[in-house]
Amino acid sequence: MKLLKKRITEEGRALSESILKVDSFLNHQIEPALIDLIAGEFCRRFADRTFNKILTVESSGIAPAVLTGLKMNLPVVFAKKAKPSTMNEEYFTAPVHSFTKQKDYDIAVSSKFIRKGERVLIIDDFLAHGSASRALIAIAEQGGAKVDGIGIVIEKGFQNGGKLLRELGYRIESLAIIEEMSENMIRFRN
Amino acid sequence: MKLLKKRITEEGRALSESILKVDSFLNHQIEPALIDLIAGEFCRRFADRTFNKILTVESSGIAPAVLTGLKMNLPVVFAKKAKPSTMNEEYFTAPVHSFTKQKDYDIAVSSKFIRKGERVLIIDDFLAHGSASRALIAIAEQGGAKVDGIGIVIEKGFQNGGKLLRELGYRIESLAIIEEMSENMIRFRN
Repeated sequence: MKLLKKRITEEGRALSESILKVDSFLNHQIEPALIDLIAGEFCRRFADRTFNKILTVESSGIAPAVLTGLKMNLPVVFAKKAKPSTMNEEYFTAPVHSFTKQKDYDIAVSSKFIRKGERVLIIDDFLAHGSASRALIAIAEQGGAKVDGIGIVIEKGFQNGGKLLRELGYRIESLAIIEEMSENMIRFRN
Repeated sequence: MKLLKKRITEEGRALSESILKVDSFLNHQIEPALIDLIAGEFCRRFADRTFNKILTVESSGIAPAVLTGLKMNLPVVFAKKAKPSTMNEEYFTAPVHSFTKQKDYDIAVSSKFIRKGERVLIIDDFLAHGSASRALIAIAEQGGAKVDGIGIVIEKGFQNGGKLLRELGYRIESLAIIEEMSENMIRFRN
């Protein structure tokens, strides 16, 4: 997605060879008009598939997931990073390791929002090692649902999450894949 | 907002006299089409004011804030509940006390996303004691911005946040104000 790559080039900052900061439009300040175009691109790329639900994880996945859900007319469920005090029913959990934050945590989804046989579209802002996507897949499977597509705004192609998930047969549509980056340089995969 | 009150009545569950669970359309599962109508209602109610930015707090404020931002053509900034590892620049913080979770935490916004003289619209899912709204006001003020409106999806009218903020002169537009609730009963303010 040309416009997205342009914005990443102009405003993104590689803090190291693995951490990219895009907080001016995606994950701290959000530019709704750009995220709306991103949602439209997800619709275009997944036009050949039918889904029942969008699954994402708080917080930065919510904006692209909700705008995609609006266009696809689908409910969006966001996994929570901590079991909330008001979540007193049964829930599915799976562990996530954040390499950026160097910590482990569980994400949780109430079991009532994953139904057997549902086809799920995962939407997330980043794909790096794939830990969050694999946790969302595990949660969907716990409820008997099937992940039929994964839409990613920015994939770090130099980390192995995308490769692993594609080898497992998942259809991943990443709108910008970064092949390599360092301070002052971001190179995209063609 | 009639449709919202209907959905709260049908799907909301008062877990106690102060905790309301609306996780089927607002803060765990999200129904984008309903949030889009909510965003339209915020636009209608604040049509007489001009804003430069929408401010919210992760995670449940993001969906209504982004859909409102899309309609108003404004950037959205969401305050983070923990200072992220990629937030290495100057930031504004303010303390929040969550009565639901019985804990204190700071929220943070990078100083580069609050500019002097900006008029800010706060959007959030709930207003109860007003702790999150007051923290967002404090953050806006640290950056020399001014909060010119507060849009709330559900106000707990039996708690004092709305009263206090209105007495301080803030214009609050709450789409549903709950006057009283208990298990199996939710009564709205007219």
